[in-house]
Amino acid sequence: MISNREEVTALILAKKVAKGVQWKEVADAIGLSKEWTTAACLGQMTFNKEQATIVGEIFELPDEAVAWLQIVPYKGSLPTEVPTDPLIYRWYEVVNVYGSTIKELIHEEFGDGIMSAIDFSMDIQREENPNGDRVNVVLSGKFLPYKTY
Amino acid sequence: MISNREEVTALILAKKVAKGVQWKEVADAIGLSKEWTTAACLGQMTFNKEQATIVGEIFELPDEAVAWLQIVPYKGSLPTEVPTDPLIYRWYEVVNVYGSTIKELIHEEFGDGIMSAIDFSMDIQREENPNGDRVNVVLSGKFLPYKTY
Amino acid sequence: MISNREEVTALILAKKVAKGVQWKEVADAIGLSKEWTTAACLGQMTFNKEQATIVGEIFELPDEAVAWLQIVPYKGSLPTEVPTDPLIYRWYEVVNVYGSTIKELIHEEFGDGIMSAIDFSMDIQREENPNGDRVNVVLSGKFLPYKTY
Amino acid sequence: MISNREEVTALILAKKVAKGVQWKEVADAIGLSKEWTTAACLGQMTFNKEQATIVGEIFELPDEAVAWLQIVPYKGSLPTEVPTDPLIYRWYEVVNVYGSTIKELIHEEFGDGIMSAIDFSMDIQREENPNGDRVNVVLSGKFLPYKTY
Amino acid sequence: MISNREEVTALILAKKVAKGVQWKEVADAIGLSKEWTTAACLGQMTFNKEQATIVGEIFELPDEAVAWLQIVPYKGSLPTEVPTDPLIYRWYEVVNVYGSTIKELIHEEFGDGIMSAIDFSMDIQREENPNGDRVNVVLSGKFLPYKTY
Amino acid sequence: MISNREEVTALILAKKVAKGVQWKEVADAIGLSKEWTTAACLGQMTFNKEQATIVGEIFELPDEAVAWLQIVPYKGSLPTEVPTDPLIYRWYEVVNVYGSTIKELIHEEFGDGIMSAIDFSMDIQREENPNGDRVNVVLSGKFLPYKTY
Amino acid sequence: MISNREEVTALILAKKVAKGVQWKEVADAIGLSKEWTTAACLGQMTFNKEQATIVGEIFELPDEAVAWLQIVPYKGSLPTEVPTDPLIYRWYEVVNVYGSTIKELIHEEFGDGIMSAIDFSMDIQREENPNGDRVNVVLSGKFLPYKTY
Amino acid sequence: MISNREEVTALILAKKVAKGVQWKEVADAIGLSKEWTTAACLGQMTFNKEQATIVGEIFELPDEAVAWLQIVPYKGSLPTEVPTDPLIYRWYEVVNVYGSTIKELIHEEFGDGIMSAIDFSMDIQREENPNGDRVNVVLSGKFLPYKTY
Amino acid sequence: MISNREEVTALILAKKVAKGVQWKEVADAIGLSKEWTTAACLGQMTFNKEQATIVGEIFELPDEAVAWLQIVPYKGSLPTEVPTDPLIYRWYEVVNVYGSTIKELIHEEFGDGIMSAIDFSMDIQREENPNGDRVNVVLSGKFLPYKTY
Amino acid sequence: MISNREEVTALILAKKVAKGVQWKEVADAIGLSKEWTTAACLGQMTFNKEQATIVGEIFELPDEAVAWLQIVPYKGSLPTEVPTDPLIYRWYEVVNVYGSTIKELIHEEFGDGIMSAIDFSMDIQREENPNGDRVNVVLSGKFLPYKTY
Repeated sequence: MISNREEVTALILAKKVAKGVQWKEVADAIGLSKEWTTAACLGQMTFNKEQATIVGEIFELPDEAVAWLQIVPYKGSLPTEVPTDPLIYRWYEVVNVYGSTIKELIHEEFGDGIMSAIDFSMDIQREENPNGDRVNVVLSGKFLPYKTY
Repeated sequence: MISNREEVTALILAKKVAKGVQWKEVADAIGLSKEWTTAACLGQMTFNKEQATIVGEIFELPDEAVAWLQIVPYKGSLPTEVPTDPLIYRWYEVVNVYGSTIKELIHEEFGDGIMSAIDFSMDIQREENPNGDRVNVVLSGKFLPYKTY
Repeated sequence: MISNREEVTALILAKKVAKGVQWKEVADAIGLSKEWTTAACLGQMTFNKEQATIVGEIFELPDEAVAWLQIVPYKGSLPTEVPTDPLIYRWYEVVNVYGSTIKELIHEEFGDGIMSAIDFSMDIQREENPNGDRVNVVLSGKFLPYKTY
Repeated sequence: MISNREEVTALILAKKVAKGVQWKEVADAIGLSKEWTTAACLGQMTFNKEQATIVGEIFELPDEAVAWLQIVPYKGSLPTEVPTDPLIYRWYEVVNVYGSTIKELIHEEFGDGIMSAIDFSMDIQREENPNGDRVNVVLSGKFLPYKTY
Repeated sequence: MISNREEVTALILAKKVAKGVQWKEVADAIGLSKEWTTAACLGQMTFNKEQATIVGEIFELPDEAVAWLQIVPYKGSLPTEVPTDPLIYRWYEVVNVYGSTIKELIHEEFGDGIMSAIDFSMDIQREENPNGDRVNVVLSGKFLPYKTY
Repeated sequence: MISNREEVTALILAKKVAKGVQWKEVADAIGLSKEWTTAACLGQMTFNKEQATIVGEIFELPDEAVAWLQIVPYKGSLPTEVPTDPLIYRWYEVVNVYGSTIKELIHEEFGDGIMSAIDFSMDIQREENPNGDRVNVVLSGKFLPYKTY
Repeated sequence: MISNREEVTALILAKKVAKGVQWKEVADAIGLSKEWTTAACLGQMTFNKEQATIVGEIFELPDEAVAWLQIVPYKGSLPTEVPTDPLIYRWYEVVNVYGSTIKELIHEEFGDGIMSAIDFSMDIQREENPNGDRVNVVLSGKFLPYKTY
Repeated sequence: MISNREEVTALILAKKVAKGVQWKEVADAIGLSKEWTTAACLGQMTFNKEQATIVGEIFELPDEAVAWLQIVPYKGSLPTEVPTDPLIYRWYEVVNVYGSTIKELIHEEFGDGIMSAIDFSMDIQREENPNGDRVNVVLSGKFLPYKTY
Repeated sequence: MISNREEVTALILAKKVAKGVQWKEVADAIGLSKEWTTAACLGQMTFNKEQATIVGEIFELPDEAVAWLQIVPYKGSLPTEVPTDPLIYRWYEVVNVYGSTIKELIHEEFGDGIMSAIDFSMDIQREENPNGDRVNVVLSGKFLPYKTY
Repeated sequence: MISNREEVTALILAKKVAKGVQWKEVADAIGLSKEWTTAACLGQMTFNKEQATIVGEIFELPDEAVAWLQIVPYKGSLPTEVPTDPLIYRWYEVVNVYGSTIKELIHEEFGDGIMSAIDFSMDIQREENPNGDRVNVVLSGKFLPYKTY
């Protein structure tokens, strides 16, 4: 009996390592970006039935797990408020060091409001560079204005 | 007597509001990006002497403040571990929801290592869009591999 | 010299108590709801020039404070993660006890996504009731769906 | 052997996903609102014997679980003080950003006291809207005055 | 200029020590219990105009402070989540050690609901005892039942 | 093999629900108050051999569990520093809102010292009341003075 | 105007450094142990009138401060839950590493109860030792048994 | 398979309760103090081979557990930063209330440095006393001076 | 089924104790430093296939575990933000006490930037010393400058 | 009036920036290492009279400040448990990622005990390197063994 999405994520990760699956292969199989697909496999997004079935086949999941993949999960992928993993921490650091800057510049351009994390997409690419390759990430979020009422 | 950088940031902000200065104007005056310039004015980066002098003139800072602008600050711009401001929280949420995804995809592409938050740049742009304009942000960080020794 | 919005909020509160101003009067003066107006006076929303001028007159604020009212504030009105004030705590308790319920029912109706806290309004009313009057609050937020990409 | 209510909630969730049950169906079966019913199934409210029996049948629960449904649970449905799930976080954000506003306006109308979270009801509805459907939530709580003694 | 109730509490405490006032004297002067009166002087309850005037005279408060005494305060009298002061900690310990017991026994007697902390009174008395005098405290709170809806 | 008291508490709770035992019955069987007895069953007090045997019979505990009931437990019955359960939170709120008041009044009466949470008893009673029944709780703790040395 | 004991402690510390006073001299002047006297000067204990007068003379305190010395303070001398100062941390470490041991041995000898921190004294002595002098501390606390009721 | 010391501690505690072993008996069997021996059995110290063998016989441990007893454990015996158990909390309270006093007096006597928690011993004794027996604890730690370099 | 690296670390530790393996032996077997090798065995670094195979043989790991050793782990080896283990705490203390010093001196020498924890190596050696042997640790990290952009 | 060491540190930092003093110059003036000297100026170590006088001259401190420099300070130089400053965080990360490794290797070499942070020295050097200069830090701490007693 499976009673939460974390158990499904654990099944996926166990099988991924055992079979040597790549996230890009999963993304290709369901025809979406590697970013959204990976997030969904890691328990942060919701698959539709067709997608869930494909994922279930790739990772040899039981039917019950395939059903859970179609349920909206409780989101949040970090075990602590401040992440300890160095790669993820660097992102937290960017938010901490540049947080007030991001706020100032978006408000200067758009006025009061936010950059949506829901109507949002992310694209991660390698940039070849003679001084050492770079990770380039494009974040795109709709600006949502506060309105008076 | 000024004994830390926060006091200088407060002086800059007070003057910015009173005089209606725009961050872009400051960036243009010192010839750098609006992102780096704003971060520096907010106490997260270090100006060289020439830059500090210009900033001092724009915000009518005392000499002592101009000296502090050239000292490396204690960084971190958020008052709490989890930011309460909605705009900045959305970024924290992106790190929390997508953190494990970012980690998986960078490692799949590059192997073990991190995306640098030091050899790093950020560019924030408005994308006009009939469904509502978007905030597009490009983050670029050098990949730094862990090595065996 | 005023260097943050909290100082302006303190000025407003001091004057409000000394002069006995009601929030509804302020709302009427600027022609908006009492909810938005109060939130703005308490440093959570941004006034435009005309509104700020009126608020400045009501609370006899210096020009510098009126300028700050037009700057997007760093939001968040609680001094601790879990509020200690009994009235506000009851709201935190509602989120804690009913949080998973709210999540389940919105997802059952709308699928994966959120109820916006930005494209959002609130209306607080007294309902007369022989068993004791009630506080009725209507929260209205646009549903924002997660999309695949 | 079942030694706490969380285990019963896990059984319900597992069965709900496996069988594709909707919360509204459960609410209809016991003749109460979807809000109260869902909260109770998620371990936040107490069923009476008749209700528990119906719920037990729907989710095929063992007798022991049906007995636990009639025991007052230890309440609180969130795993962390600040919720990480984006939908639930938006509600926390409303309490954080509007908390002082709610407090001011209820006190202005009613004097010192609280809005009860016990003599309380909630109603969640979809509002169709050409700009995007909205989630409308009505919270109704009895005002409880502090008295002198 | 006084901008919050804490400043008024500080004024009261300073004057209380300097003049050697007893809380019981204040309670007698306004004709209420020593428990409610002390809580109100310490910034946890709201005085009406007449009471505030008397308190203002006893502690020689400025008019502005007397006005603040009539404003509902942001409540909570402890500087940390877990109190460090030994006397107050013992009360926290009682809640921690006996918390589940109190919960079980109230539910066994009354069913699901709470003991109100708003429709509530407290009485602290000395009990003379040859083995050492005792502090006897009577807490009385209305039982508020959860109802189905 | 049982390696801590929590496992024994879990056994007791599971059996209590399955058999429908009341705490008062347990208290009567061992001849002590319902408050102490419940606290002890919930892992906060230590039974002597005779009491443990009776409790073991009521809840059909294995010998090993009966032995654990006679071992002093690691105390504290709450899963978080600030309790999330509404009934228990109200008690935390009383300590938070009235904490400084309790401190002031005990010191005014007794001087420096504490109210013991060890040489302590509690009595919880229902008071019938036409405006709604009340929970009345008497806490009695020996005053322990700080002494100079 | 002095509105809390911390301000008095600050006055004492400032004068102590400026005048080069030793804690032992203060203890001798009031005829009590150096441990109790120091704790009291640091805002953790309550002086009687005679003692407060002597302390006031030594540290040249204003009358108002001398009055505060006779008021029971809010206790707790550490700025964080886990102390950062290495000397004080070692004591926290002893409690952390040996805490379960202390608990087991006191219960093995005395049964259920505590070692009082109120009916308590402490004596700190230097022990000369060829391998390096040692700090010897004797802690003496009355055993307070839990009783059934 | 045993993969950490906590599992060994659990085995020891389960057997201790089941067999009714006293810590003093274990200490006598290995010829060391009851304080060190208990700490070691509770997973805070490291046994040598001979000691581990004796402990293994007393508690009927498997060979694997005896091997773990000889491995240096990850130390710290408390589940929370601030201990909830009343007996252990009193020790935390002593550190909190007297922490600054201990620091001042050791520095007054020895200068800058610490009292070692490694080159350290503890002795817990019962002192018979007509006013109630006392727990006397002697802590002895080498003074380690900070040196300039 | 193995679903995370922690399980592999537990397997390694269990086998290490049972078989009495030394970290240096493992390091020699794979031809790298004892520091990197131990960190990798403890789940902080990523082995290549050849290394993983050798480690798998030494610790008799199943194939699935050997596969996990080649997957980049979620890093961070401490169970709490402030470590409780005395040896590791001393390192935290060095960072806490000397943190601002390290920052000042590196900036004085290099300007704004950091000492990399990725392009980093560590070497731990025993230094024999008549006053007691010393642990000497050399940390070497590439300086990474912040650049303007 | 100066009532704590932090005020002295603030005076030193303000003067250092205003006058452009280098830490190395201060170290040379008092004849000690730059590491110890900087730590002492930043409020983490204790100067003797001669050293304090020199420091007072360099930073033009008042006599009272010079007296405070000779008082043992309350140590700890970080404003939060987890440092936000990127340079200092990297050190925290080293402790977090390598903490268990450091522990294992020191115990493998020395047995149970710690590396002292008191009988300790640190040396920070620049290593020129064609791939980018490195920061090399040597930490040297006496090994202190746990002993049985």
